[in-house]
Amino acid sequence: MVTENQTVGSIGENEALKRTVSRLNQGEFTIVGSGDDAAVVSTTDDRFVVTTDTMIEGHDFRLDWSSFYDLGYKAVATNVSDVAAMGARPTALVVAIAVPASTLVSDLEAFADGLRTACESLAPGCAVVGGDLAASEQVFISVTAHGSLEGREPVLRSGARVGQIVAVAGTLGRAAAGLGLLQSNNTDAVAAYDAFVETQLRPSPPVQAGIDAAVAGATSMLDLSDGLAKDAARIAKASGVAIRINSRDLDGFIAMLEEPARAIDADAKAWVISGGEDHSLLATFDVDAAIPRAFKPIGTVVAGEGVYLDDDKLAEQGWDSITG
Amino acid sequence: MVTENQTVGSIGENEALKRTVSRLNQGEFTIVGSGDDAAVVSTTDDRFVVTTDTMIEGHDFRLDWSSFYDLGYKAVATNVSDVAAMGARPTALVVAIAVPASTLVSDLEAFADGLRTACESLAPGCAVVGGDLAASEQVFISVTAHGSLEGREPVLRSGARVGQIVAVAGTLGRAAAGLGLLQSNNTDAVAAYDAFVETQLRPSPPVQAGIDAAVAGATSMLDLSDGLAKDAARIAKASGVAIRINSRDLDGFIAMLEEPARAIDADAKAWVISGGEDHSLLATFDVDAAIPRAFKPIGTVVAGEGVYLDDDKLAEQGWDSITG
Repeated sequence: MVTENQTVGSIGENEALKRTVSRLNQGEFTIVGSGDDAAVVSTTDDRFVVTTDTMIEGHDFRLDWSSFYDLGYKAVATNVSDVAAMGARPTALVVAIAVPASTLVSDLEAFADGLRTACESLAPGCAVVGGDLAASEQVFISVTAHGSLEGREPVLRSGARVGQIVAVAGTLGRAAAGLGLLQSNNTDAVAAYDAFVETQLRPSPPVQAGIDAAVAGATSMLDLSDGLAKDAARIAKASGVAIRINSRDLDGFIAMLEEPARAIDADAKAWVISGGEDHSLLATFDVDAAIPRAFKPIGTVVAGEGVYLDDDKLAEQGWDSITG
Repeated sequence: MVTENQTVGSIGENEALKRTVSRLNQGEFTIVGSGDDAAVVSTTDDRFVVTTDTMIEGHDFRLDWSSFYDLGYKAVATNVSDVAAMGARPTALVVAIAVPASTLVSDLEAFADGLRTACESLAPGCAVVGGDLAASEQVFISVTAHGSLEGREPVLRSGARVGQIVAVAGTLGRAAAGLGLLQSNNTDAVAAYDAFVETQLRPSPPVQAGIDAAVAGATSMLDLSDGLAKDAARIAKASGVAIRINSRDLDGFIAMLEEPARAIDADAKAWVISGGEDHSLLATFDVDAAIPRAFKPIGTVVAGEGVYLDDDKLAEQGWDSITG
């Protein structure tokens, strides 16, 4: 039987779901998985962490840049990153996807492979426990991720205090470099710097670093999804403080991006300061905390409001999911 | 300041979210609500129940039939119904909505009012704890609902045993009657039978009945979203049994629909047997169980497979979210 050209519309919801679900991994925390009215997930204490994020064709991704495998991977990555930013361990995901009826079943299977691989690589033990498949004209993906605090207090955005150290785990500007390369239509540059493009298409949030930060007593933390300047401003605002970033501590991040920036005549420093989607973690720590190795100090918490690069106040900038 | 014509695109994501979130109720189980990377929700034991459901413009609803208030209400109703079908108490929701930038802010506010009212009416204590707002061409709504088992075992689809009683809590065919009225374009009939249309637009799942059924020892249960015939077949298949429905026990449900059926020349019996979206609960009980008052016996579990109406095997029929 030739199956490679089967579409979701030709086999219907039940069969398409069955073919997709069979490719997912079993989770460590799954008591009842897919197939009933709801799933049942275990927690390590009497609380759970929950977050949701949506990806929409033409707004958050383009199907000529992202494969369905990439989309599955990224949908998991962006959500487990938010769980980790609370200091929690990702345990379970539910995934809703809507696709045109003309979508190939093999694309849906690749999407499931992306979900599974991202769970296994980024958040071992975590798995998809349920979902929904529907028909639409545009591709919509909505993931809700859950996590366990393992007895710890959640790390909020509001706990930064004057005098504390500001540190980042993960890359800065690398996903923006990847997006810039794709937008440049410079196929040579895309090929030469494909590792940057990969960070845009399949980000690798430092999930364990989020848990380590909570254990080390991080006083505030968030996921860098909309760019350093905009996201740091969120901690500043929630905590009633200002954040001062030392430009010399960004030099290493900028240096990593200079080659691709030169290739497409872009600004590596702008990528580092306002580029989104790295899904790195920004956290604050007391000066005497044992800051986890994955975190690099880049500044300090000071009195006032807003975000400063050395002595210059940064304008709020970055991605708005409605206005772009 | 004139604000009634403001669009989501004109005020951007942050302001639109702020205006929406401020209209939501506070939940009894919310430890950390909207505004951080993730929410934190309390559980009554070391497990939680989770389910997700998606509504897509042009497939699951039409904006000329449903107001944004209706959409918010229905999104909550369909999801807390799945939680109740596990025998769990709904505790928390996350809601992702994507709308065109031209959508009025007042529509988004009405959506939030629908979410709040449905939580307060259908699942007191439950609230929206987080969400996501994005731009799209089609309206897309994805809700994930959570519940607490309060120490009970989840009621699955697989526990029906030969000899047990099959019972239903809630209406049958009423939402299908409402859909039939809307589809008829017969405005007189729509006006005359608006209570049926209301069940289609704002269903009222019997959430407490689901909890009561679990306490009474229901051996299997599900949410009737795709029609009695199709959903009963799911219990039959998962449990390795057949379900025999007594036609005389459906007479009361059919009688309720005869007037609107006559008005638009439709078949009330077909609505009861294969109409979806009532979000009633179908459950099985031991013969000596104290079946909760909200449940009406309509049949028995017998050996074999599939679903019978008296002695006639029913074809699998009902809604497929891809093929319609």
